Amino acid sequence: MPATLYVLNGPNLNLLGQRQPEIYGRATLADIETACREQAAAFALDLDFRQTNQEGTLIDWLHEADGAAAGVVLNPGAYTHTSIALFDAIRALSVPVVEVHLSNIYAREAFRHHSYVSPVALGVICGFGAQGYVLAVTALAQQRPAS
Amino acid sequence: MPATLYVLNGPNLNLLGQRQPEIYGRATLADIETACREQAAAFALDLDFRQTNQEGTLIDWLHEADGAAAGVVLNPGAYTHTSIALFDAIRALSVPVVEVHLSNIYAREAFRHHSYVSPVALGVICGFGAQGYVLAVTALAQQRPAS
Amino acid sequence: MPATLYVLNGPNLNLLGQRQPEIYGRATLADIETACREQAAAFALDLDFRQTNQEGTLIDWLHEADGAAAGVVLNPGAYTHTSIALFDAIRALSVPVVEVHLSNIYAREAFRHHSYVSPVALGVICGFGAQGYVLAVTALAQQRPAS
Amino acid sequence: MPATLYVLNGPNLNLLGQRQPEIYGRATLADIETACREQAAAFALDLDFRQTNQEGTLIDWLHEADGAAAGVVLNPGAYTHTSIALFDAIRALSVPVVEVHLSNIYAREAFRHHSYVSPVALGVICGFGAQGYVLAVTALAQQRPAS
Amino acid sequence: MPATLYVLNGPNLNLLGQRQPEIYGRATLADIETACREQAAAFALDLDFRQTNQEGTLIDWLHEADGAAAGVVLNPGAYTHTSIALFDAIRALSVPVVEVHLSNIYAREAFRHHSYVSPVALGVICGFGAQGYVLAVTALAQQRPAS
Amino acid sequence: MPATLYVLNGPNLNLLGQRQPEIYGRATLADIETACREQAAAFALDLDFRQTNQEGTLIDWLHEADGAAAGVVLNPGAYTHTSIALFDAIRALSVPVVEVHLSNIYAREAFRHHSYVSPVALGVICGFGAQGYVLAVTALAQQRPAS
Amino acid sequence: MPATLYVLNGPNLNLLGQRQPEIYGRATLADIETACREQAAAFALDLDFRQTNQEGTLIDWLHEADGAAAGVVLNPGAYTHTSIALFDAIRALSVPVVEVHLSNIYAREAFRHHSYVSPVALGVICGFGAQGYVLAVTALAQQRPAS
Amino acid sequence: MPATLYVLNGPNLNLLGQRQPEIYGRATLADIETACREQAAAFALDLDFRQTNQEGTLIDWLHEADGAAAGVVLNPGAYTHTSIALFDAIRALSVPVVEVHLSNIYAREAFRHHSYVSPVALGVICGFGAQGYVLAVTALAQQRPAS
Amino acid sequence: MPATLYVLNGPNLNLLGQRQPEIYGRATLADIETACREQAAAFALDLDFRQTNQEGTLIDWLHEADGAAAGVVLNPGAYTHTSIALFDAIRALSVPVVEVHLSNIYAREAFRHHSYVSPVALGVICGFGAQGYVLAVTALAQQRPAS
Amino acid sequence: MPATLYVLNGPNLNLLGQRQPEIYGRATLADIETACREQAAAFALDLDFRQTNQEGTLIDWLHEADGAAAGVVLNPGAYTHTSIALFDAIRALSVPVVEVHLSNIYAREAFRHHSYVSPVALGVICGFGAQGYVLAVTALAQQRPAS
Amino acid sequence: MPATLYVLNGPNLNLLGQRQPEIYGRATLADIETACREQAAAFALDLDFRQTNQEGTLIDWLHEADGAAAGVVLNPGAYTHTSIALFDAIRALSVPVVEVHLSNIYAREAFRHHSYVSPVALGVICGFGAQGYVLAVTALAQQRPAS
Amino acid sequence: MPATLYVLNGPNLNLLGQRQPEIYGRATLADIETACREQAAAFALDLDFRQTNQEGTLIDWLHEADGAAAGVVLNPGAYTHTSIALFDAIRALSVPVVEVHLSNIYAREAFRHHSYVSPVALGVICGFGAQGYVLAVTALAQQRPAS
Repeated sequence: MPATLYVLNGPNLNLLGQRQPEIYGRATLADIETACREQAAAFALDLDFRQTNQEGTLIDWLHEADGAAAGVVLNPGAYTHTSIALFDAIRALSVPVVEVHLSNIYAREAFRHHSYVSPVALGVICGFGAQGYVLAVTALAQQRPAS
Repeated sequence: MPATLYVLNGPNLNLLGQRQPEIYGRATLADIETACREQAAAFALDLDFRQTNQEGTLIDWLHEADGAAAGVVLNPGAYTHTSIALFDAIRALSVPVVEVHLSNIYAREAFRHHSYVSPVALGVICGFGAQGYVLAVTALAQQRPAS
Repeated sequence: MPATLYVLNGPNLNLLGQRQPEIYGRATLADIETACREQAAAFALDLDFRQTNQEGTLIDWLHEADGAAAGVVLNPGAYTHTSIALFDAIRALSVPVVEVHLSNIYAREAFRHHSYVSPVALGVICGFGAQGYVLAVTALAQQRPAS
Repeated sequence: MPATLYVLNGPNLNLLGQRQPEIYGRATLADIETACREQAAAFALDLDFRQTNQEGTLIDWLHEADGAAAGVVLNPGAYTHTSIALFDAIRALSVPVVEVHLSNIYAREAFRHHSYVSPVALGVICGFGAQGYVLAVTALAQQRPAS
Repeated sequence: MPATLYVLNGPNLNLLGQRQPEIYGRATLADIETACREQAAAFALDLDFRQTNQEGTLIDWLHEADGAAAGVVLNPGAYTHTSIALFDAIRALSVPVVEVHLSNIYAREAFRHHSYVSPVALGVICGFGAQGYVLAVTALAQQRPAS
Repeated sequence: MPATLYVLNGPNLNLLGQRQPEIYGRATLADIETACREQAAAFALDLDFRQTNQEGTLIDWLHEADGAAAGVVLNPGAYTHTSIALFDAIRALSVPVVEVHLSNIYAREAFRHHSYVSPVALGVICGFGAQGYVLAVTALAQQRPAS
Repeated sequence: MPATLYVLNGPNLNLLGQRQPEIYGRATLADIETACREQAAAFALDLDFRQTNQEGTLIDWLHEADGAAAGVVLNPGAYTHTSIALFDAIRALSVPVVEVHLSNIYAREAFRHHSYVSPVALGVICGFGAQGYVLAVTALAQQRPAS
Repeated sequence: MPATLYVLNGPNLNLLGQRQPEIYGRATLADIETACREQAAAFALDLDFRQTNQEGTLIDWLHEADGAAAGVVLNPGAYTHTSIALFDAIRALSVPVVEVHLSNIYAREAFRHHSYVSPVALGVICGFGAQGYVLAVTALAQQRPAS
Repeated sequence: MPATLYVLNGPNLNLLGQRQPEIYGRATLADIETACREQAAAFALDLDFRQTNQEGTLIDWLHEADGAAAGVVLNPGAYTHTSIALFDAIRALSVPVVEVHLSNIYAREAFRHHSYVSPVALGVICGFGAQGYVLAVTALAQQRPAS
Repeated sequence: MPATLYVLNGPNLNLLGQRQPEIYGRATLADIETACREQAAAFALDLDFRQTNQEGTLIDWLHEADGAAAGVVLNPGAYTHTSIALFDAIRALSVPVVEVHLSNIYAREAFRHHSYVSPVALGVICGFGAQGYVLAVTALAQQRPAS
Repeated sequence: MPATLYVLNGPNLNLLGQRQPEIYGRATLADIETACREQAAAFALDLDFRQTNQEGTLIDWLHEADGAAAGVVLNPGAYTHTSIALFDAIRALSVPVVEVHLSNIYAREAFRHHSYVSPVALGVICGFGAQGYVLAVTALAQQRPAS
Repeated sequence: MPATLYVLNGPNLNLLGQRQPEIYGRATLADIETACREQAAAFALDLDFRQTNQEGTLIDWLHEADGAAAGVVLNPGAYTHTSIALFDAIRALSVPVVEVHLSNIYAREAFRHHSYVSPVALGVICGFGAQGYVLAVTALAQQRPAS
């Protein structure tokens, strides 16, 4: 079984820490990558951490994860709410996906309350900012059977 | 600041581990209490762990938590989806509440997709079974400023 | 197998026979208890007949029925239409539940046309007044395998 | 007053017992007719038992029942959910109609949850298979004033 | 006719004056009780003033009011929006009920715009804070025929 | 051009005058036929007046009217609200159809407010009882170019 | 009883015959007035024929009609679909109102399919152009008891 | 600060006391004016009492009230439910507006349950007939700081 | 296994080729029958080709097809959108049904976008006119295992 | 062709600049009139600039514009969202209408997101405050063919 | 006219044959390409067969097809249900597009029942697995006029 | 402050002028670029004019605009109606965005009436064809403080 976790980030997450910190916090995506990498290391896992603004590229990466990763932490950004293609890609995956959001999407606009990803994710963690990624890494690492 | 976390459980959670393990898992509520207590201890926190089938009693306990607890892990069971009174009680609280569900509620019946608790919770964790409680305890413990 | 049937009544049913007889009829809850008890006796079954205005108490009683009763006749009153917690409690039950309503709820206000109980009940009987309870007792008694 | 009950069956009920027994049970329509006839006889009532796949024919039979029958047990099959014409025919009837369904329609597809017949029926019985017809015959027979 | 008014308060109203004063004002429930008692006294009426977080207990009190009270001032809190059981309890009552809300519920979240209590109340008063209770006592007192 | 008008009546209209006169009036279908025939005669037109409870038969008759009639007065009864097949049949017709209802369908249940026939009818007349048929015959007769 | 009929016309009807003749026909409002006056004369009735673009003025005229007119033919134009105030004015009237539309409103945009006037009108006539006014005058004249 | 209250009445309220007394009571608008004037006098306030059937005129008067009145009692009649223009006019006002309805609008037709006025009113009083106006005058008078 | 295909046509399809050729094309039903028969012959299959305007008759024929046909090509006409009874009949069938429409129903009125037949059909072919029937015959013929 | 543009303003726009400047800006209606007049002059066009709170008066003015104006800049205020009568008036107009709003109506309450005017306007300009009127005048002036 | 057909495949279709064969079958995309190529060859047509996970790339290819292809077989995968951009691209195309789905999308989740592609496609074929592509190639080939 | 405006165009706009000129006009994208560049030059501003069919690329360009442009004219094409990711990208931007559409989107299909871009745009201009871009450039240029 692969000893790597994928952490995949969707549109606009490259802006993290620079704008709207009252919603998304002050941590940059690089800060989050560092925190995830440390937590993964504690479980002897590698990390592949990426960001894209393209829906189709997220799908490519999810296909790639199947076989290459032990699990995926996915923050699909705004595609969460509109992408049936992500739904299909995840459902076809044989490794678990944990959906993460920095903000509490249920405390925001109504159009953010529905996620096409949630029904096919293992679980959902939202509202904890950068800490949520670390909890997700923990959750996936503990899902992994001891070798 | 109090050094105690409340873990409050709503209707039907007293049946845990006995029925519908394909949805809720095999851990009993006592098993979950033990796991939470250990994780809290790792952060030098006490735990007050309770269950009730009465909506009004959950509200009484939330009122009581204000002043007595550093934070609340709340699994409101089915009241999640129907109780505006819980919404009001949590919004009036000055300590953070983390909403937890054993199952991934977004992968179940449509009437479980809306939560009155989520918009006033700090964050939401669902789909990880008993492990989700432990992640919630961790999240709250790390929110707490070092003394 | 227990030789007892539970007959559980929800909110406002303690007022039966005193008010709004044009909707609910003139039989009191005591009259209905007597009629049920006689019919149960015809099948050599005992009866445990209760009423409460508390949603949580109905849930407690349903939990208690599991193991103590051969079946449950349930008139959840207005909680029929609002209680996902009852849905969960019944679904976790290993004995059959028959949902009964005195009035024909489908001939009344729109908010009475949906029942959270029906999808997890064995069957539904409504519109026959006190007679409906007796039909429900008959239905459950005949479900019971001959000893 | 006529000493006859009509038992009228709508579309696809001629297939009973042959297909989808996991939903509709193994009793054939002939078995149900026999069970109804026996129960009616216990109340000294005759039975007129029919089936049709035509909506208009069900309406013809309901018109005919007025004057010829003491009551009607009606299983309108799928026309339950779409026929305002049945609604009108029953509302114009001076004898009581009991709506029966073999399966628990509220535990099935959403489009089966609404019945145009229920608001104009005396009462509804569903989910008890062939037994439901017998309960309906009982209900109608007991509605009938002693001569 | 009884010379007493009931003033019944639902969930979270015990917190009044302590939290969210920008919505609910600074008066405590005790302050409101005092103001109501004075106004009632001006009409030579006694007052029975209570609060509970339990839906079922509100129903018990409404049943008790029938015969014991000349009228009821009811602030059902969040149960306003979810309780068909309160609707049933009030409709069965032979004394008038005036629905009161401290805040203007129509100026708040959409889920507070519908009330199950309003259609069966004599009238509705909302948005006037503690003053609204006094107006409600006045309205009920003036409904009462002079002896 | 044919010198005949068709007057076609749908389900339950054979009961006219016998039941629910507070809604449909006391005129029988034979009375209406007589009144229509007299008004048609005033315009030197014949009348073909029919009733059926079968949706498919109404469609057959509409097909037949094309070529045989100068226009159609159609009271589709309850099929008004449910029959897209009638919509298709009328749209394919080369002679005008006037939709008539005895009662004012817009003053009745919500499910009677939508008509599949109206968008393809020349015009709609409702609420005038038997008189409405005569107005419809007049309207069609005046549509007819003088020979 | 007054020997006058009111014919009241709402917004934009002053443009009749000049624009959009494919929808509204080529008759001007003056042509329609002439046709109505002739038909009324045939029943020995006077006619008061008016048009306004103001919703409030239509209401004033309806108030005035009560006592002054034997009946009202009302073409409320676009206020048909938006004016609850017209609904209230007509419901308060003791003389019958017939709603008329030149075009078949059910064959047009969805927002024209609902009328606030229809539920409180005696009847509705639409789709017959100027002829519809004459049919409405006829209908009202025949409602009038012979003196 | 002005020592005058405006009491503004919308469409059809000029008919009060003459029609539909089962809904609106027997008091005429003049009776209500007298009652309001007496109550205002008790607080040393003048009263400007008006009625119109025109939506735009209500808006004119609300603009005029700003600066001329200490507060406004507004019964917008049917415009309550359709007028965003009233919403805008009130939101632009610097004096408080109390919305009053004679009947309990929440116990009537569904289209009366939504008010565009409520979200921008200080508070709402409905269901108390003429008495409601007096309560509204009281509420506004007590809002006014003692000079 | 039977060597016959059923091709069943619903309401108004007898008019094909005569009216609305811009929607349905110029082929008559007889032309389509010929084309289907030729294609079936190419696969050594017989054809039973029928049309009816009665919903119930379509159901009768579907029942008959079970055992008599290797598959069914079904153009249910307007019953596509309204008939749950067809849904039930097809679901009870043990042979495959291919749903065909001459026009592209998804490019037409909204009420044609939902089909009760599609969820229980093997597949759907629409928009190809008469050619679609031939494609459907091909599809069914190729489903058939070589003997 | 007329060398005049109409600029018509609906309800509450007479208050501009005095209240809610955070939404509508600080320009008064007179300021806007001056800016429009200057821009029109640059294109050698006159300007007729008006405001009313009455829906019917806006309709009168639109009728008047036909023949008198080369185009209309229309800010219908709140009638934008409720007036089908404006829709009809504009559709009957032979000169172009440009819809203008000071604020960005799509960034405000949901009930401002739909406009009955937009579908019949030439184009829409919103969110630019007083500048939007000038852009609209420019747009209309450039539509006008050079003489 | 070009002698080439385009066969364009959207997101996740590169996974065909490897995962969820119970829904999508066991044929790989290469198998489907082979089958299409053979069928096209039978009509002397070339084939250009492609797959992408990017919505924008599908649009690029559709633009390219205009002029280069005689027709397009399009399986837009999940973009079927969400892409108005595909709708626009196809509507701007001068060659016919046939929409194909491997599975019967109407027998699956509700969010797959609506297609933005269907209203602008020539026709739709779904539910026949790989065979559906071959039927689509046939349909397009037969649309092509003989040279 | 940058002296450049970005003009960004979404999917299918590369086809402008070639197809569907009745909707989008005859100007090509190059024509529009020229017109914009001239208008910008009149305000001494540079222009960066681009088009893409990829949603993610639009997002990349919006990120890039922050710091590089004084403002953005954005025609998001069909992504207007579906892209929450564009909403997020614009909300994070510190320069103003003006939304432009060639056609009047409110006069077209219902699915074009909602824009995810409008609520976060400075303003919206639609229906003026190529002229609308020039108005948008003007609007942005005038927003820019004089240096």
